[in-house]
Amino acid sequence: MRRITPKRVLVGEPLDTARLGETLLPKRLALPIFCSDPLSSVAYATEEILLILALGGVTLLHLTWYAAAAIVFLLVVVASYRQTCHAYPGGGGAYVVSSENLGRTAALTAASALLVDYVLTVAVSVVSGVAAITSAVPSLSDHQVVMSVAFVVVLTVMNLRGVRESGRVFAIPTYGFVLVIYVMFAVAAVRMATGSTIRAESADLPLHAVGTYTGIGLVLLALRAFASGCTALTGVEAISNGVPAFRRPKSRNAANTLAVMGLLSATMFAGITTLAMVYEVHVAASPTELGLPADTPTSTALAQIGRATFGDWHVLFYLLQAVTAGVLVLAANTAFNGFPMLASILAKDRYAPVQLYNRGDRLVYSNGVVLLALTAITLIVAFDAELTRLIQLYIIGVFVSFTLSQAGMVRHWRRELARPTTPAAERVHIHRRMAINAVGAAMTALVLVIVLITKFTHGAWLVVIAMPLLFLGMKGVRRHYDRVRQQVAVPAEVKPREPLRYHMVVLVSNVHAPTLKALGFAQGLRPTTLTALTAAADEDAEALRRKWESHDLGVPLRILHSPYREVVGPIVAHVQEMAAEDPGGVVSVVIPEYVVGHWWEQPLHNQNALRLKARLLFTPGVTVIDVPYLLESARP
Amino acid sequence: MRRITPKRVLVGEPLDTARLGETLLPKRLALPIFCSDPLSSVAYATEEILLILALGGVTLLHLTWYAAAAIVFLLVVVASYRQTCHAYPGGGGAYVVSSENLGRTAALTAASALLVDYVLTVAVSVVSGVAAITSAVPSLSDHQVVMSVAFVVVLTVMNLRGVRESGRVFAIPTYGFVLVIYVMFAVAAVRMATGSTIRAESADLPLHAVGTYTGIGLVLLALRAFASGCTALTGVEAISNGVPAFRRPKSRNAANTLAVMGLLSATMFAGITTLAMVYEVHVAASPTELGLPADTPTSTALAQIGRATFGDWHVLFYLLQAVTAGVLVLAANTAFNGFPMLASILAKDRYAPVQLYNRGDRLVYSNGVVLLALTAITLIVAFDAELTRLIQLYIIGVFVSFTLSQAGMVRHWRRELARPTTPAAERVHIHRRMAINAVGAAMTALVLVIVLITKFTHGAWLVVIAMPLLFLGMKGVRRHYDRVRQQVAVPAEVKPREPLRYHMVVLVSNVHAPTLKALGFAQGLRPTTLTALTAAADEDAEALRRKWESHDLGVPLRILHSPYREVVGPIVAHVQEMAAEDPGGVVSVVIPEYVVGHWWEQPLHNQNALRLKARLLFTPGVTVIDVPYLLESARP
Repeated sequence: MRRITPKRVLVGEPLDTARLGETLLPKRLALPIFCSDPLSSVAYATEEILLILALGGVTLLHLTWYAAAAIVFLLVVVASYRQTCHAYPGGGGAYVVSSENLGRTAALTAASALLVDYVLTVAVSVVSGVAAITSAVPSLSDHQVVMSVAFVVVLTVMNLRGVRESGRVFAIPTYGFVLVIYVMFAVAAVRMATGSTIRAESADLPLHAVGTYTGIGLVLLALRAFASGCTALTGVEAISNGVPAFRRPKSRNAANTLAVMGLLSATMFAGITTLAMVYEVHVAASPTELGLPADTPTSTALAQIGRATFGDWHVLFYLLQAVTAGVLVLAANTAFNGFPMLASILAKDRYAPVQLYNRGDRLVYSNGVVLLALTAITLIVAFDAELTRLIQLYIIGVFVSFTLSQAGMVRHWRRELARPTTPAAERVHIHRRMAINAVGAAMTALVLVIVLITKFTHGAWLVVIAMPLLFLGMKGVRRHYDRVRQQVAVPAEVKPREPLRYHMVVLVSNVHAPTLKALGFAQGLRPTTLTALTAAADEDAEALRRKWESHDLGVPLRILHSPYREVVGPIVAHVQEMAAEDPGGVVSVVIPEYVVGHWWEQPLHNQNALRLKARLLFTPGVTVIDVPYLLESARP
Repeated sequence: MRRITPKRVLVGEPLDTARLGETLLPKRLALPIFCSDPLSSVAYATEEILLILALGGVTLLHLTWYAAAAIVFLLVVVASYRQTCHAYPGGGGAYVVSSENLGRTAALTAASALLVDYVLTVAVSVVSGVAAITSAVPSLSDHQVVMSVAFVVVLTVMNLRGVRESGRVFAIPTYGFVLVIYVMFAVAAVRMATGSTIRAESADLPLHAVGTYTGIGLVLLALRAFASGCTALTGVEAISNGVPAFRRPKSRNAANTLAVMGLLSATMFAGITTLAMVYEVHVAASPTELGLPADTPTSTALAQIGRATFGDWHVLFYLLQAVTAGVLVLAANTAFNGFPMLASILAKDRYAPVQLYNRGDRLVYSNGVVLLALTAITLIVAFDAELTRLIQLYIIGVFVSFTLSQAGMVRHWRRELARPTTPAAERVHIHRRMAINAVGAAMTALVLVIVLITKFTHGAWLVVIAMPLLFLGMKGVRRHYDRVRQQVAVPAEVKPREPLRYHMVVLVSNVHAPTLKALGFAQGLRPTTLTALTAAADEDAEALRRKWESHDLGVPLRILHSPYREVVGPIVAHVQEMAAEDPGGVVSVVIPEYVVGHWWEQPLHNQNALRLKARLLFTPGVTVIDVPYLLESARP
């Protein structure tokens, strides 16, 4: 029965709901799917710190250490999120946790933050992945926007195919990335241990301080670097969100995967930052600040480290860039998992359009996937695929949802303790979990304040505007649905009410087969009144009347004078009048429609029917009956 | 009753058919309306000749004389067209004349040529008008595309308002243009007679020959220049086309207007070309060929002549540029008159979509106006508002229609002579008219061959492809309409046939007021069978069934199993099955629809209804009944 359509070829056969169980993920697949985002963020986090510190000139570079240490420390957040996995086996995204523990306003705030974030995850990761490619192949530097958009499109198609197949595709670059980074550390260690001095290609480039930073200025700069480095934390929440996708025991598997991810992330980030310091990598927002011509193709910090470490082993360098690009582009997939799922939860709670609620026929939320892709593409094009500008928008949302989620967890544990049924043996555990979450909440709140202060004027204001707009939008959608639901609700004792009289009006443009078919349909229903109706200029009207009379159809023809040769207006006015004259009855407008077989034939026929129907929909007491007449080319 | 809408404000109140007579044009208004095109083409014809001859270097410039002489000579065509005015008081466009005298194929060829031409008239005239502006205000040079598009939009709005008001707007720049050009001739004559030597600003710029032209190459170059100069003839046919818009005696008034136009056109063109030679105006396709930097703003030949002639009288120079721009932009109006009228004739003959047939409510053919504007804007943007490239496409169509039209006239007169009722006294006149048309046909055919040979590789191939495509498209449209007409025709004795049985299916997603309203509507019509139908996944289905039973509605609910949570597919399949089971009956699908009050609320509701209706339209034996339920916000 299923036809072969372009959609089928692209996204595969539909899946049955019963097969949903089969798509559950073992840990070895869950790690690449949910952790490509947090793992891959180490590819750009170091560079973002260096970029900020470069503003203060080369002498400030030692501050990197403090910033990096602070961030590694912040991976404590991971511990905090592990508690969420245990508490919410059904999926503990910031929205769910906030809504259950902190109320509607907090929940919608978290939702706004998460939606903005998912979009930016896609944009930032893909753009950063493309930067890894152009670092290896500088001749592609001019095509960053096109390449970024192309990757988003590929991801969209993959995600429309469904989650399981995606998992396999993701395993290779994610594990490859981790492996190659550790190999790089090993090579660097061996080479330095054997007496080599390794320096980055940019080590000798001058680094001009944009200003002199002392006192409070210096502190702010250090904080700004710290805030930029916090990009390494992005994506940590993905696992707690995706607990239901894990195999049983879900919570335990998810928590363990989270721990592995935290360990990998922290060591890789620390290692890369160490090498950047040792090799003296110099980066700046534009090549001119490094004394180079403006159109010099630039390399990412990670690419410079790789090139310096691997030296003549070019194969390893290109492999590093390939897996970096791979893991970054696929990191965007975290958002392709999270965004549609969150949108669906929001739609179920009637805060988002109902179209986002249903899964498509491949068991993924197709509308959400497409919406995410379109928004991300818009951002990439608008920001010209410039990573540093996009990243400014990124961190606020992340830390808003972190803070709300951890604070919600504290409240969650407090309630557990308050419940008299909670066994004493568990209370100790709960106290420990609550403490961990409280530390997490405090720390993420602190970072949020720092990020807000240091990033606001650098582009973050856009997010500060977008989030409240989303918040209000969701409130508005809910209000609309509530109003509609209230209006259409009926108590069980109410029965359908039949109209007292049926007035049928058959629209006529000529006497031909479609008209006769519509007339026959209407006559057979024995309406209270039946008339044929047309709107015509005087000269055409006379010819139609003669033809009508010659056919002797037994139905009166009413001709509306239409001096402007307008059809829709006079007919709608006439029908409105009829409806107003008999409030107990109903007016049915019967429209004979030509149906042609090819889409390109449709514009050859007057579009009056469509415009009429649109106008009549809004007329109280009027229904529209379409009687299609299939032309030969349209018959099956 | 009429509401104030943006459309009303832009295009004015609708006009009654009875007022059509009032919009007839006196000669003093007909001249600017129909002649702004042929008159204004002298503004660029000289320059196009110079551009071609410049390829052969400065020494070839004397050839201009021959080319210009040939074109003035060609104004004989005007005489030929005057015969058409007399023979076709109802409007003697190339399409009408060809179709009456040369048959369908020639007529459709002429129609294709004319349609292409009208579009190019808009594009070329507007772009050239903008060039006149940027010649006076070089700082606008970077905005030619935007300005051109803006002018097309202004013209579109003016033409949607109707022909009479347009006439008044046009009179000033057209008469102004003629006046200022003659003033310029006078000033030049006086200054030269009193001993001044006037030279163009570009007279001293070097003119590098692109190649050496001798023998056949030289002849071809001269012919190419001649072909370019033929742009001066474009628009001549407009008057013969527009005879019915003239006041009585229509033919005589039109023929006289045509004669005046020919005289003005020929003298202005001769004068401008003379001044270009005397002042030694040098032009080239790009500034670099004249030894200038590539981004030097350029002046048109006419602007250079004006600047040189008026010297310090800057006001007169700016006035010249203003009226030139004015007349050129308004010349595009010829096409805004001709294109929709031709499209309407074609639609009446069923060679074009029926939407182009009706006049809009301001007595103009609105759809044709909009179609023309969109196509012209596309061309302007695609060709980056470059006049010389657009003009290559222009002349072929003009001369195809000229040739067909004149040849058709010869055939017309021959028929008149063959008729025994033609009085002997008139036969002399007819012989003279036929001779004039024969000369016209021969000459325009010759020019067509020259244009084809010399312009083909310079872009005219595009038109050579577009015209046959249009031709085939029109044939296809006619074939479609003929087939449909044949299929739907019914003899007078056939009566409407009532279906034997009515099966009504009310689509249900929930038990609420819209559902009850639809059920009541269907019940009251006493159908043979009545069922409620829904498609749902198992978990939702059970809840709906319980609610349905609690309401005890007396109508059975049929639930279609939809594992993919797809609604449209299963319902369409079920309805198709029902229809197939009872060929003598009809299945009516009753759709309860939410109608919301604001367009932005509509996306908040599932679009399944629309998709369902589109699919059901193509199912034989099925009708669709829309029962709208107006939510409070949608009630009037």
